[in-house]
Amino acid sequence: MAELHLLSPRGFKAAGVYAGIKAKQVNDVGLLVCDTMASAAAVFTTNKVFAAPVKIGKSHIARGKLRGVVVNSGNANACTGKKGEQDAIAMCQLAADKIGTDPHAFLPSSTGIIGHHLPMDKVSSGIVAAHAQLGDSHEHALAFGDAIMTTDVRRKSAAVEFKVGRQKLVLAGVAKGSGMIGPRLALPHATMLAYLTTDAQVSPAILRKLLQQAADVSFNNVTVDDQASTNDTCCILASGASGVKVASERDVKSFARALVEVCQSLAYQIAADGEGATKVIEVIVRNASSEAAARAMARSIANSPLVKCAANGNDPNWGRVLCAAGMVGVPFDPQKATLKLQGTIVFDKGTPTRFAADAVSQDMRAEKVTIDLNCRLGKATSTCWTCDLSKEYVTINADYHT
Amino acid sequence: MAELHLLSPRGFKAAGVYAGIKAKQVNDVGLLVCDTMASAAAVFTTNKVFAAPVKIGKSHIARGKLRGVVVNSGNANACTGKKGEQDAIAMCQLAADKIGTDPHAFLPSSTGIIGHHLPMDKVSSGIVAAHAQLGDSHEHALAFGDAIMTTDVRRKSAAVEFKVGRQKLVLAGVAKGSGMIGPRLALPHATMLAYLTTDAQVSPAILRKLLQQAADVSFNNVTVDDQASTNDTCCILASGASGVKVASERDVKSFARALVEVCQSLAYQIAADGEGATKVIEVIVRNASSEAAARAMARSIANSPLVKCAANGNDPNWGRVLCAAGMVGVPFDPQKATLKLQGTIVFDKGTPTRFAADAVSQDMRAEKVTIDLNCRLGKATSTCWTCDLSKEYVTINADYHT
Repeated sequence: MAELHLLSPRGFKAAGVYAGIKAKQVNDVGLLVCDTMASAAAVFTTNKVFAAPVKIGKSHIARGKLRGVVVNSGNANACTGKKGEQDAIAMCQLAADKIGTDPHAFLPSSTGIIGHHLPMDKVSSGIVAAHAQLGDSHEHALAFGDAIMTTDVRRKSAAVEFKVGRQKLVLAGVAKGSGMIGPRLALPHATMLAYLTTDAQVSPAILRKLLQQAADVSFNNVTVDDQASTNDTCCILASGASGVKVASERDVKSFARALVEVCQSLAYQIAADGEGATKVIEVIVRNASSEAAARAMARSIANSPLVKCAANGNDPNWGRVLCAAGMVGVPFDPQKATLKLQGTIVFDKGTPTRFAADAVSQDMRAEKVTIDLNCRLGKATSTCWTCDLSKEYVTINADYHT
Repeated sequence: MAELHLLSPRGFKAAGVYAGIKAKQVNDVGLLVCDTMASAAAVFTTNKVFAAPVKIGKSHIARGKLRGVVVNSGNANACTGKKGEQDAIAMCQLAADKIGTDPHAFLPSSTGIIGHHLPMDKVSSGIVAAHAQLGDSHEHALAFGDAIMTTDVRRKSAAVEFKVGRQKLVLAGVAKGSGMIGPRLALPHATMLAYLTTDAQVSPAILRKLLQQAADVSFNNVTVDDQASTNDTCCILASGASGVKVASERDVKSFARALVEVCQSLAYQIAADGEGATKVIEVIVRNASSEAAARAMARSIANSPLVKCAANGNDPNWGRVLCAAGMVGVPFDPQKATLKLQGTIVFDKGTPTRFAADAVSQDMRAEKVTIDLNCRLGKATSTCWTCDLSKEYVTINADYHT
């Protein structure tokens, strides 16, 4: 079977082109279009400073119906005042004109530098060019995915097949995100952008509920630098082109599983492609007193620059992990806790264990370092993904603008 | 007049020696002793994972009376179980034996790597050697200050004279702190250590109240990496050797002012000596809806790795500042806000201003970069100090242990 991709679900076309917004000649305008009006839901940044396309997108998604999304990279259209809003509307207007629908049927997204007006001449010609190239091949999916990338080094995509009755349906997605990553997505929250497609027939109400649930255990548990961007957006489009309805409790469950699987894969890929990342850090906090406590501790560990630097240097400096867990303020008792670093118990019930530091350091030279903290205070567990902090992160971010 | 220092207030002696705890031959054991029983107060880390000396120190300070503090660097005596507590008690016992008092009259502190038992033979001979060298000269103050340093590159000390009636009193302090800095100090919270001396006669109750107030507008507003350490401690000793009592409302106020001045100076010096720092970032959030909102926004901006990297690269990328302010979740409206970067208005009421990016970048090549955000929502103002994020921070922390 051919590899699944964003356009494997029936009823979608996409394109990505270089419109000259970025200095580097890589795709910067993308269009994803459904053949018919799709059932849709989106979650956005909860940052009080949200970009113009987020404001417009919230309004356009309100009906639970979309024909597509129109996206540019290289400029976030954030903190751009009234003109920024007009520009976001103009992007939708042009895309809608091209396919013969109304502007409210498009969700606009932008990602890149904050505080600069969009070069609308370039954006416009990009949209026109993208429309002319729309198609449903794997190449088209890749071109669209590339158009949403900024400091990303790797492509991020995921797709799964799931069954409703005897019917095989597909749920797929692409995402971008490398820096300013610490999404707090909520229904009408990085700059993380993710677009999901499915050929299932699902109501907007179900999509809305399941998308928030999936975001909470995927995108909202990934952090590169803990920055909830002005532009974070995750949008799902259900074309219904399979003719197969997802409504019964059983079918909704299998759809929800597929959705979580795709979102978690994309979230993991975002962590792996964090700015300057050399590895993924997976933080698992087990048996915490509450889900909120587990999440808060996992996120605090994942956000510790000291933990992230130690991972970069393959340094089993586990004291930094306990420090980050203890500072949150939620119930935590080192006397009851066990900490494993890459599978080795380094701290157990209040006392450091004797372990071969050199061997653990060697084990940390891997694509993924696992930090596993068992609190023994309750039954709640949470997993958070991040990456190490390298000199390259500083290089990338000390000189992004000027 | 000679320069004021930690031992300028009458009634104190100190010493610092190299006891072999650190690999590098620099002071690692220090003693600060008051000639008589001093009135005392201390604030400690609020981290649930607190070091053995913090546990013992909380118990010893309970009476509001101390003869002194006994400190080592190079090892935090944190996450070291029952033996760690015994070691902290043994440090107090030995210091107390030497000066002929009971162990409860000493507050122990440790700073350095987490999770290793103290080399008690070295610590003990260090305490004996320090006792033999006690003195009240500027050199003695410097030797003690040096003994509490870890990755610190610069000494941190501050002292002020203040008047009670016609009498001149002195309040002085030394501090350490460079990494794992994001104190949340509270009465019985980095590893930030600060020791303050005064020759005023002040009750423990007044000291306690004023120390928490001063910590809240100084140490608790400084962040290098937002990590509230297992060992953070700030302790004040009032010898009373001046014979001048601070009790009236007016005198307490002038004492409080002196205390805030010394604590803020030390906090600023900690930011300036943040691991890998090339400059201080002063974040001022004005006219926020509440004090809590102002503090939270200022701290969020100061903790943004993107803001810190931009400062490192002299990059006027102000969008990152607004992003960090907006993500906190407290009331904030970009339509009402004005943002100044090193004195230049870069964003005003929802809209970016035209400014000379090259000139602002040039202005940012300074020892201090000021970020000034006027929210126009209320009357609360808060200032937070941090430093830039450099490649050197990664170098220091990727390879601290192994």
